[in-house]
Amino acid sequence: MSSLINDPLITWNNYPHVISADQFGPDSIKQLLLLAEHLLQARADHLRLLLRNANKLMVELFYQPSTRTRLSFGIAMQRLGGMVISTENAKEFSSAAKGESLTDSIKTLNALGADVIVLRYHETGGAARAAEISQAPIINAGDGTGEHPTQGLLDLLTIKKELGRLDNFSIAFVGDIYKSRTISSLVGLLRGFNGVEMHFVAPSYIELSPATLKYLLDGRKKINRHLTLAEAIIKCDVVYMTRIQAENYADDQTLKKLSKDLIDYSLNGPYHGKAVIMHPLPRNEEIAPDLDQNPKSAYFRQVGYGLCLRMALLLQIFGSKIIA
Amino acid sequence: MSSLINDPLITWNNYPHVISADQFGPDSIKQLLLLAEHLLQARADHLRLLLRNANKLMVELFYQPSTRTRLSFGIAMQRLGGMVISTENAKEFSSAAKGESLTDSIKTLNALGADVIVLRYHETGGAARAAEISQAPIINAGDGTGEHPTQGLLDLLTIKKELGRLDNFSIAFVGDIYKSRTISSLVGLLRGFNGVEMHFVAPSYIELSPATLKYLLDGRKKINRHLTLAEAIIKCDVVYMTRIQAENYADDQTLKKLSKDLIDYSLNGPYHGKAVIMHPLPRNEEIAPDLDQNPKSAYFRQVGYGLCLRMALLLQIFGSKIIA
Amino acid sequence: MSSLINDPLITWNNYPHVISADQFGPDSIKQLLLLAEHLLQARADHLRLLLRNANKLMVELFYQPSTRTRLSFGIAMQRLGGMVISTENAKEFSSAAKGESLTDSIKTLNALGADVIVLRYHETGGAARAAEISQAPIINAGDGTGEHPTQGLLDLLTIKKELGRLDNFSIAFVGDIYKSRTISSLVGLLRGFNGVEMHFVAPSYIELSPATLKYLLDGRKKINRHLTLAEAIIKCDVVYMTRIQAENYADDQTLKKLSKDLIDYSLNGPYHGKAVIMHPLPRNEEIAPDLDQNPKSAYFRQVGYGLCLRMALLLQIFGSKIIA
Repeated sequence: MSSLINDPLITWNNYPHVISADQFGPDSIKQLLLLAEHLLQARADHLRLLLRNANKLMVELFYQPSTRTRLSFGIAMQRLGGMVISTENAKEFSSAAKGESLTDSIKTLNALGADVIVLRYHETGGAARAAEISQAPIINAGDGTGEHPTQGLLDLLTIKKELGRLDNFSIAFVGDIYKSRTISSLVGLLRGFNGVEMHFVAPSYIELSPATLKYLLDGRKKINRHLTLAEAIIKCDVVYMTRIQAENYADDQTLKKLSKDLIDYSLNGPYHGKAVIMHPLPRNEEIAPDLDQNPKSAYFRQVGYGLCLRMALLLQIFGSKIIA
Repeated sequence: MSSLINDPLITWNNYPHVISADQFGPDSIKQLLLLAEHLLQARADHLRLLLRNANKLMVELFYQPSTRTRLSFGIAMQRLGGMVISTENAKEFSSAAKGESLTDSIKTLNALGADVIVLRYHETGGAARAAEISQAPIINAGDGTGEHPTQGLLDLLTIKKELGRLDNFSIAFVGDIYKSRTISSLVGLLRGFNGVEMHFVAPSYIELSPATLKYLLDGRKKINRHLTLAEAIIKCDVVYMTRIQAENYADDQTLKKLSKDLIDYSLNGPYHGKAVIMHPLPRNEEIAPDLDQNPKSAYFRQVGYGLCLRMALLLQIFGSKIIA
Repeated sequence: MSSLINDPLITWNNYPHVISADQFGPDSIKQLLLLAEHLLQARADHLRLLLRNANKLMVELFYQPSTRTRLSFGIAMQRLGGMVISTENAKEFSSAAKGESLTDSIKTLNALGADVIVLRYHETGGAARAAEISQAPIINAGDGTGEHPTQGLLDLLTIKKELGRLDNFSIAFVGDIYKSRTISSLVGLLRGFNGVEMHFVAPSYIELSPATLKYLLDGRKKINRHLTLAEAIIKCDVVYMTRIQAENYADDQTLKKLSKDLIDYSLNGPYHGKAVIMHPLPRNEEIAPDLDQNPKSAYFRQVGYGLCLRMALLLQIFGSKIIA
């Protein structure tokens, strides 16, 4: 396995932190995914040896609740034999209540000897600000409406596992795609792959986030907004469903209209599409539970891939020194 | 010890989950309690070997706060050498805030590779719903006003340790016995034992919960409501005290009346009863702290028995494969 | 290292708990700090062996949020190879919500086999009340406006590391020094050292806490309130900055006036003092972030010293039996 962990820092643009899709070119992605696939097959007792004698400590600093992401990172670290310490709602219950700044919290965790800091922050750019002053690697576990790069990376792993390839495929993003940090990260990561056709299936008044637009225009990709969901599930290889992110809408009026309009962007009848169904979860009404048994439904497998992806990332952060 | 861990799944009615007292017949209870008593005597370094190389991960998913129960399970798992990851208030701070359903949370924990899920849920039937779709064993750590089977099991262990037997004894349930999931579970577990006389000591307007009634009527047990507390502590072998569960009363008026009426159902003077005093804790006014030193007061020993009972249960879940 | 861990219980006044500065004379402090300095140099893999086979469990019971202190203790214990289980906001989310008393919680943790209990409590005297009934050692991690002895001890370690000595130095306490439990503990610990000159730099209406006064008058120390901050940073060896503790002021009016007045007690320009700058953190406006790079700024180093100090304390609690 050691050959899978060579020089990740170089391929992440000489940057020890994991902040943005920008850092990941196709080569570093392929290397990371190969390692993650390797870990998918590994036995629990083998996994546990990988960091057991490394004495590495992960601190999870979450300013927003996120059971799924927090548990996923924590389990990944524990399964590898590492140590984890965690704060669930730093914004309300930690020293933030006494007015401490994000940067002071990060400096404190550095002084406490954290070997890696997993940060969920409520404002865009939080992870980048943390990375500027942190000696320990920061992993961005979501910053406001910015990015969520490990979600994007696990989405790629899902696509590779489900389709068998990362190029020459079509994907439709569906629903409340405005300000989705998940979509921003995934689109950014897909930039370097060939023949990826992207569709955006949403009510006309829902715009793409500036970050998503930037990635698309930088890569001079065409923005396809012509498909209905019914067409997308037949024509595309993947439909990437999203929930309404209520926290992004200030007034109830807009939210109500959106909820109503998005009914047409839900999968709630029998499913005969060819498209693999993905979702970053949690879901609301946009995918009916009846669909969970359908072999095309990949969203819970996606969670499992995420665990291995995060293990792989942690091994790349610590591993080159550890695994000889 | 290995002989103590044979075929628990069969004795739990071929069901890998721990949801209800219904699953436990006298034989499976005796087997479990024997193992728990064995663990009570074990040295910490021996305990730790039991799951140390098993790579087992417990996830504690608590939708209601319960420091005692959560810590008890977490400590049990850690003492056995297992891994624990925990969320304290899933209802308010986890993805439930984004509208995720219980079943989606359980499917997610399955995808994350949880080996056992300890679930506290605010609605009756939550654990059963979780068990329907979970591959990993679910342990019901309290579901609304439904059941709390591991509390019932540790109550049995306490009775066995304090009285030396599980049959031919009398027990008085005292206080706010309406809707008590603890009492429901304990009464259910006692059904299979011979010569158990049960008394219910409470104001006349406090009814037994439907579940308790079901157990009693199924077993054609007599419902005794004639004793006062003063009589119960002299005539019975055990008095099982309970606190007012304020969360079960919507209006303040009822709650005030209840608080006033229940003063007569409190132990707050000198104690000269023969009955062992039990309480599921936390307590409020119904047992005066002065009583804590009395040798008949078993409620803090009960906590310690609970730890060993939960270790025994975890070993039965994992152990038949582990301990040769 | 074993010689560093002899007889701590005797030097703590035959008391297994860590509640107050009163317990620590200069000899026991010197012994503790020597051990902590030793640990500062230790390799992670050596640290981990110290408690690895000791099967010791720390429970962190926090009734007030304090990410820094909670993580610091938790990391100290994990780095030594011990087990940690934690509740972040016992006051709101634990059984306290059901009315459980502090002493019942402590008795419960004893029954659950906690080997040490780290307690943050919102009322003065909480730790002492807990210690009265606990078999497991209690470590006071802050009790209301009472004490915070491990903060005081880590402050001493910082002074020793920064100045090279614990006697014959001058220290100025600056800001909202009223009711500061940190200052109470540090002043109490300094009593036994020779030639320590203390200054209190604050608006005239801010009084010293009764505990601080007691220590000063007991030791017949002079109370110096004549320096300005500008003078203190030139004349003193250490300036100990503090933030406004908003929770100690009931009305907004007072708080506003205080905030305004304390601007003159802030370090926010270029710094040319000789004094080492300390702060218990978190900070607000009283130290400008620009100062962080200044070699005199010791407040983040202080955090690191705290980690080692807490490890040393844990080893003294467990160690005499462990390290031969």
